Amino acid sequence: MALFDFITDEKLRSQLVFMVECDKVKNIFRRTLITDGSRRENDAEHSWHLALCAMIFEEYAADEINMLKVLKMVTVHDLIEIYAGDTFAYDTEGLASKAQREHEAAERLFGLLDAEQSEEFKSLWLEFESRETPDSLYAAAMDTIQPLIHNYMTDGATWKGGVTSDKVYERNAPVKAAAPELWQVVEGIIEGSVKKGILKR
Amino acid sequence: MALFDFITDEKLRSQLVFMVECDKVKNIFRRTLITDGSRRENDAEHSWHLALCAMIFEEYAADEINMLKVLKMVTVHDLIEIYAGDTFAYDTEGLASKAQREHEAAERLFGLLDAEQSEEFKSLWLEFESRETPDSLYAAAMDTIQPLIHNYMTDGATWKGGVTSDKVYERNAPVKAAAPELWQVVEGIIEGSVKKGILKR
Repeated sequence: MALFDFITDEKLRSQLVFMVECDKVKNIFRRTLITDGSRRENDAEHSWHLALCAMIFEEYAADEINMLKVLKMVTVHDLIEIYAGDTFAYDTEGLASKAQREHEAAERLFGLLDAEQSEEFKSLWLEFESRETPDSLYAAAMDTIQPLIHNYMTDGATWKGGVTSDKVYERNAPVKAAAPELWQVVEGIIEGSVKKGILKR
Repeated sequence: MALFDFITDEKLRSQLVFMVECDKVKNIFRRTLITDGSRRENDAEHSWHLALCAMIFEEYAADEINMLKVLKMVTVHDLIEIYAGDTFAYDTEGLASKAQREHEAAERLFGLLDAEQSEEFKSLWLEFESRETPDSLYAAAMDTIQPLIHNYMTDGATWKGGVTSDKVYERNAPVKAAAPELWQVVEGIIEGSVKKGILKR
């Protein structure tokens, strides 16, 4: 039997189906551990934590940002991983096919909604990916500093495969651009981790 | 060693500590199952899903709402459960002590932040709890319809202890007030579940 077959309004039914389909992001697990180190974090938890971080650290945004846009972007930014999977930030091979896989996933997932709402969600995701606007750069800064802090709390759990400090600096570049006062957090964690021997120079 | 001892700015350090403390909400599990029925949902996932629902269903809001406020409220609304625990919506005994436990938890958790930001987070939580403003009523509607939909997807998993349809109607009252067009979803799920024998009349 089709889901929500008791709803006659097609648009509303498609929104309900979309809402349920998106629940699958709770089963997309990242490399990152939650801060007590007990298990991997999933995309729903991660997205929620980015929203919280965006609120906590708002005063450090370098440019005027639209917090509503930022919160919407972080809420939807990983949905495409339902079909495209999580690509580890330091997986060169996976990164090569990432864009193609994610664009197909976006068409499929957001295509569950009617044209107007589909466009709205897709453009939020595209802006997040672009890292070209103050809002998307600030969102990207949250998206890199949050797992960095998780690595700080879990003895560099995702760095064990041989990730080097220059890669971590590079990945956290959005922090320097979008929230420069938070760069001391990036530097402090990276340099401290190199000193502790849990991150290679 | 104290967390983030390499950060000399006290305010920033307290924000980082707060950000890590809030990670514990990922280990606060609700009665609700995720929609594939495989396991219980935690508060971080639930909060993320409310943000998404608020975005999806915005057009059905009865009153003019401030979506920024709504997204902030749903992001922080369950943080106090880190110390107060999750109180099952149909647990009469637990509900009696809920307010006291949660207010103490709010003081303790938001008290990690400096006075101004602490006040900001606490007032978001208090407004959410009040259900007196259009924004908090709409957020409350999301907070009741999301687990209802999860029950629809999981054969009434949280109703098995003898919950009755009138209690579920009562609990979903915010939907009728804040997003009346979604009331057909509430009715359809409840009546269909009674018919299927998974919810008592």
